[in-house]
Amino acid sequence: MLNDLILSTDSRIVFLVLDGVGDIPNPSYNFMTPLEAAKKPNLDLLAMEKGALGRIIPVDIGVTPGSGPGHLSLFGYDPVQYSIGRGILEVLGLNMDLQANDLAARGNFCTVRDGVVVDRRAGRIATSETERLIAQIASAVPEVEGYKVVLAPGKSHRFAVIFRGQGLSDELDDADPHKDGRPPAPAKAKTAQAEKAASVVNAFIRKVGEVLKDEPVANGILLRGFSLRPDIPQFSERYAMDALAIATYPMYRGIAKVLGMTVQHEPQDYGDAVAILKNNFNAFQFFFVHIKETDTAGEDGNFPAKVDAIEAVDRIIPEIAALRPDVLVVTGDHSTPCPLKGHSWHPVPLLLVTNAFTAGRDGLAFHEKNCLRGSVGTIYSKELMALALASSLKLDKYGA
Amino acid sequence: MLNDLILSTDSRIVFLVLDGVGDIPNPSYNFMTPLEAAKKPNLDLLAMEKGALGRIIPVDIGVTPGSGPGHLSLFGYDPVQYSIGRGILEVLGLNMDLQANDLAARGNFCTVRDGVVVDRRAGRIATSETERLIAQIASAVPEVEGYKVVLAPGKSHRFAVIFRGQGLSDELDDADPHKDGRPPAPAKAKTAQAEKAASVVNAFIRKVGEVLKDEPVANGILLRGFSLRPDIPQFSERYAMDALAIATYPMYRGIAKVLGMTVQHEPQDYGDAVAILKNNFNAFQFFFVHIKETDTAGEDGNFPAKVDAIEAVDRIIPEIAALRPDVLVVTGDHSTPCPLKGHSWHPVPLLLVTNAFTAGRDGLAFHEKNCLRGSVGTIYSKELMALALASSLKLDKYGA
Repeated sequence: MLNDLILSTDSRIVFLVLDGVGDIPNPSYNFMTPLEAAKKPNLDLLAMEKGALGRIIPVDIGVTPGSGPGHLSLFGYDPVQYSIGRGILEVLGLNMDLQANDLAARGNFCTVRDGVVVDRRAGRIATSETERLIAQIASAVPEVEGYKVVLAPGKSHRFAVIFRGQGLSDELDDADPHKDGRPPAPAKAKTAQAEKAASVVNAFIRKVGEVLKDEPVANGILLRGFSLRPDIPQFSERYAMDALAIATYPMYRGIAKVLGMTVQHEPQDYGDAVAILKNNFNAFQFFFVHIKETDTAGEDGNFPAKVDAIEAVDRIIPEIAALRPDVLVVTGDHSTPCPLKGHSWHPVPLLLVTNAFTAGRDGLAFHEKNCLRGSVGTIYSKELMALALASSLKLDKYGA
Repeated sequence: MLNDLILSTDSRIVFLVLDGVGDIPNPSYNFMTPLEAAKKPNLDLLAMEKGALGRIIPVDIGVTPGSGPGHLSLFGYDPVQYSIGRGILEVLGLNMDLQANDLAARGNFCTVRDGVVVDRRAGRIATSETERLIAQIASAVPEVEGYKVVLAPGKSHRFAVIFRGQGLSDELDDADPHKDGRPPAPAKAKTAQAEKAASVVNAFIRKVGEVLKDEPVANGILLRGFSLRPDIPQFSERYAMDALAIATYPMYRGIAKVLGMTVQHEPQDYGDAVAILKNNFNAFQFFFVHIKETDTAGEDGNFPAKVDAIEAVDRIIPEIAALRPDVLVVTGDHSTPCPLKGHSWHPVPLLLVTNAFTAGRDGLAFHEKNCLRGSVGTIYSKELMALALASSLKLDKYGA
């Protein structure tokens, strides 16, 4: 229904996504959450004066989302209907050129001894080492069984690979034993159609093994997350907005690219991110700004670090607000509670800042407990986009 | 989707179901609810320290559920997609052996005078009378039109009957005039396929009438709730948990059996119920403890009795908590407000007790008014199971 109501307007929407920002009352911190404990005068002033609060459920009640479903739903895509394979996300995040029918995978260098994977991360070798090895493999194994091989080094022991050609299926189990101390696992076809892909992938792994055979540490590779580019409606067509993504981490740039957003160069810090936002504010209508540090702190169970990340974000808020976007959304793709040290199913706090004509103005500071009392209520993340569109007057009336 | 995320773990979930516990502000009791008026220090302490509150909607907004839909939804089954016939519930609750294709029905003895049912419950004759009459019928009418008849006496004037053989449909209207002062109603086939079943049932009723013709009070029978065993996914397969049901009343043991739960002997009192729970705590991962008295008091419109029932439950809470289940859910299958003297559509108060790592810790005592403010929000009963699974870390992440 939404599609038929979209109006093309000049209004601007900023999504400031604090990855994993949602948390739960922490027994070690007087049952506060990091958002509650953080000193964030700018966010709270916006929330009090022009904010409507609420909570968003990324996928479904009780369901803990990965980053893909978490973001797709934020952008108004049903995360059960649409999915992006992990290999595709990695490839896009590393700025690799993705073509139709490309089969993508994530890779690790690993250490193999006497037919056993003794370290799935090859001692987390330096990025420079990975760059050297990838260059070596690229020159030694440019193609396998007629399929072109495209490689890109990632951070530390990680890399990504594309097998380019017609007719490769992604119905493959990981070529990864998933635990140290087991023999290397070949890629296994889940369907008859995928036999060709399994053969190509496994031939590649063998050839790489020969290239690396004299390496002291990184003498093998693991491949996982085999995937093809998904067929997803493009953001700009769906919402009649040109979208700009500003994100430090590959995965989030990757998600933005799959949706057809323009992806800016990696910002050096939050100040740089704001500068990119400012410089492009006239050229786009939608802006996705991704902040990773809240999630990292949550994954580490580090409450003070999460508070620090939130406070650092708070310091860039005045500059973002000064751009006077019609709608500023501050929320997360999921919760990463410090006590859990990982993604969780808990509803994510939402701050929807609008102008005086569309505002809820709940008059409440921004944290989980107030969000429970906010005027937006508890909705699904995939419904948030409609609210942002409506609040920026980008949706026509439904029915006469 | 949930099915693909289930993890088999050692964590334990207890569902303490206070039948009909939900209520509404009572004008005769200072607009309190029984849950609000009851002194329940143990439940409230758990709620304040480790509890997340919320409300659950059994079937849909405005819909008053029977016990079947009320419980199916609690166990995560869509009560509209799945249903258990009333006859099947009764038969299972009376510990009758149910076979494939059995047609089950609930029965009443009744009093017929001059072709009119003058008392649909035959003066609520004693259970011992019912036992005597059922034995007499069983020996006089072992089969009808080639279909085996299996009978079991229930409490007071109630019994259950199975018609055993191939090809009987349950598309039958009740053989029950539903009001005193009307002539007996034969079972009517709703479809052509059900003509055979109607013929068998009505022949049985006639034969029983002959057996009972000299009885002074119980000289007829009414049959209703014709049903076949439903095809419902089994609880243990669905959730990778072995489940134990502890319930006094036949109906609730019946529901548990249909879902494939292990059903324990009838507990003598709450203390016995707790003893069964303790003795079996290592052997199962899921425990369904059913408390009937809250519903009975609600049906009677007896506010003080409902308060008493809640306070009696509160006294067994420390022993349940001492078992340290990973998740303890305290809620109801529906509301039975005293002012209404019957089941109702009102959302049911929910207390979800978890450990410190997954808790909401709303810091609120457990009653309807606080539940409205709880961090779980208002959800559908069928969604509760996902929350219980997540909170006991039995659900994997969705997507990368």
